[in-house]
Amino acid sequence: MMLEMKTTKFLEELSSKAPVPGGGGASAAVGAFGAALGMMVANLTVGKKKYAAVEEEILAAREELERLRDRLVTLTDRDAQAFEPLSRAYGLPKNTEEEKAAREKIMESALYEASVVPMEIMETVLSSMDLLETLGEKGSRLALSDVGVGILFAQAALEGASLNVFINTRLMKDRSQAEELNARADRMIAEGREKKERIYSQVLQSVK
Amino acid sequence: MMLEMKTTKFLEELSSKAPVPGGGGASAAVGAFGAALGMMVANLTVGKKKYAAVEEEILAAREELERLRDRLVTLTDRDAQAFEPLSRAYGLPKNTEEEKAAREKIMESALYEASVVPMEIMETVLSSMDLLETLGEKGSRLALSDVGVGILFAQAALEGASLNVFINTRLMKDRSQAEELNARADRMIAEGREKKERIYSQVLQSVK
Repeated sequence: MMLEMKTTKFLEELSSKAPVPGGGGASAAVGAFGAALGMMVANLTVGKKKYAAVEEEILAAREELERLRDRLVTLTDRDAQAFEPLSRAYGLPKNTEEEKAAREKIMESALYEASVVPMEIMETVLSSMDLLETLGEKGSRLALSDVGVGILFAQAALEGASLNVFINTRLMKDRSQAEELNARADRMIAEGREKKERIYSQVLQSVK
Repeated sequence: MMLEMKTTKFLEELSSKAPVPGGGGASAAVGAFGAALGMMVANLTVGKKKYAAVEEEILAAREELERLRDRLVTLTDRDAQAFEPLSRAYGLPKNTEEEKAAREKIMESALYEASVVPMEIMETVLSSMDLLETLGEKGSRLALSDVGVGILFAQAALEGASLNVFINTRLMKDRSQAEELNARADRMIAEGREKKERIYSQVLQSVK
């Protein structure tokens, strides 16, 4: 697993010209950092008398964030795996019409697979934003800045993953499928920006 | 060193209620991810005939990004170290007037130290943004989306670190020092947002 590497080693791999990890996998990792910060806020809230009334809700948020964090860790690998077929497709021969047609078909399916993973990263990150919002409203006031950092990371991960949707959909021949994927990504970006603005401005008001 | 941990282990530590790593150290780490993506773009550019004319400039950017990336890795630790004196200051007795005065003096200096580190994270990230801009303009077109992801990470790291300046400056008694630090942080946020908007919109135009 990629994120089983030391972070310094992951940074070396990310810095290299090797195709993976790239921006997609790194976005999943940054999304996991955001979810982890949400868990930290939950952990600083539970067991405190002052927050006893919301304890159940915070515990549920923590559990869900853990699931999302771990899914994002897995998605770092899945993003790398989805790149392999695409890389192989680029290498296929295109000398005859038959070869060209075969290559195009395989390429199309590889591009689809390579856009689906960053799309799933986006969905997962978007879910984590809802939980960060709950923690911003009901979690420990002492950890509010960490909700803010978490939502900034989530926003960056969301848009970072979206770029990795777009670089694949733009090469697809099936434009209706490409545009459907783009439209879904655009909706998630818009939703994410709105959430981020709302949560971040609340945090900033209390922190600054 | 914190980032010598496996990333999954770092994520566990970040998720826990332990005071470090927190949002400040995580921001330095995400800033390092952004710098690493810039290095990746540089590495995908150098040695290519098409980019021979900018080779020297790209090599210089890569070298500088490596320095910034490694400094951000170190700043993750320095952020944790700066928290210790603050944590100790909170624990000091405040029974007598003398104790109160002594505690306040130590607290004030600990708060200053704890704001200076995220400020340095901000400065380092801001420098990485300039190099990402160079790579966005002159680096390999094939890696443009990674410049975009890098600038998103840098922006999140910059603002994430700023929250960790503000939570410390707001507790300072010396308001003129606190406000000077806040003003510097605000200037860096404004500068970073402008850079991010400019670079990101260029990337999006080419990628989408």
